[in-house]
Amino acid sequence: MAREARWDQVLDTAARLFSSQGFAATSIREVAAQAAFSKAGLYYHIREKEDLLYHVCVASIEAILAQVRPAVADEDNPLAQLAAIIRVHSLYFHDHPDNLKVLTYELGQLPEARRAEVQAIERQYLDLIRGIIHEGQMAGQLTDMDPTVAAFMLLSLMNGLHNWYDPRGPLGAAGLAETIQRIFLSGLRLESPK
Amino acid sequence: MAREARWDQVLDTAARLFSSQGFAATSIREVAAQAAFSKAGLYYHIREKEDLLYHVCVASIEAILAQVRPAVADEDNPLAQLAAIIRVHSLYFHDHPDNLKVLTYELGQLPEARRAEVQAIERQYLDLIRGIIHEGQMAGQLTDMDPTVAAFMLLSLMNGLHNWYDPRGPLGAAGLAETIQRIFLSGLRLESPK
Repeated sequence: MAREARWDQVLDTAARLFSSQGFAATSIREVAAQAAFSKAGLYYHIREKEDLLYHVCVASIEAILAQVRPAVADEDNPLAQLAAIIRVHSLYFHDHPDNLKVLTYELGQLPEARRAEVQAIERQYLDLIRGIIHEGQMAGQLTDMDPTVAAFMLLSLMNGLHNWYDPRGPLGAAGLAETIQRIFLSGLRLESPK
Repeated sequence: MAREARWDQVLDTAARLFSSQGFAATSIREVAAQAAFSKAGLYYHIREKEDLLYHVCVASIEAILAQVRPAVADEDNPLAQLAAIIRVHSLYFHDHPDNLKVLTYELGQLPEARRAEVQAIERQYLDLIRGIIHEGQMAGQLTDMDPTVAAFMLLSLMNGLHNWYDPRGPLGAAGLAETIQRIFLSGLRLESPK
């Protein structure tokens, strides 16, 4: 396997262990063993366990943004763009539930400076959503709810998924997206004048 | 101050410190000092730091339930009952943001058995919401979305509040409740037949 693919496998293993047993309870040795990577090889990439958490968080939020941005560019109106974000995010969660759970629950374990770096990337995601909502309001498609608040509410819905969504269950990624779209977009859509 | 009020003050202090700097970074000594409680006195109530986290979590979820249940009983239809839950929960969050942040983010620090105890109380809250949604569906008020999923989505909206709601900001508890009601109840309400 190429070096990059092997490293991705380390990050996936770390995400799975941090998610299932917590960052504090996971050792570098365990990650290396389960990823079939030598501990010495791991120390070539990282210096301490926090580095692994940092890379999992950055890779997760960057992976979502890398898929969300083109999906938004492909749509020509704000409601369809929001629906696309929900679709892409739901699919990413379906495929990588551990990554997003770690990003939500273990970010606080990073030292201040690195946490701020991850939050700066998360902020780009928030800004993207907020900008679309603002455009939808200008275009008369969406209600006048504070765009920042509305963007945070969408992210809250998506950050709570690991509490109830089972990727092996019958709903599936498409059903998941449809469910979030139904709650969030109905609340935001401006009702047509009676 | 009566013993019970002094103990409540210890729990409030613990919630504030766990919320602002994390459970792991907070010492019993610090909680005792900031609550103006002797460390010896604290050890009369608890044996270790985890006990403090356990009591904060239980007190928080029980306090919400103690306010939510009568508010629900006061309303005679499912939509009004859901609106009441959102109102009471928003007000509790407004008054005790640290308690709910700790309940969301630090629960994983408890040992398995105690975490399960807290989750069993949280499950009562979920069951209450789910039951009301189910009733609303039977009464033809609400759409046929899976009541469990809908209940989790409402809790996700409320568990994400600390990411954006500032109790000192201009929105206020009533504005907060109205915002969540607008997103969540519009998504769930059955549109009147055209």
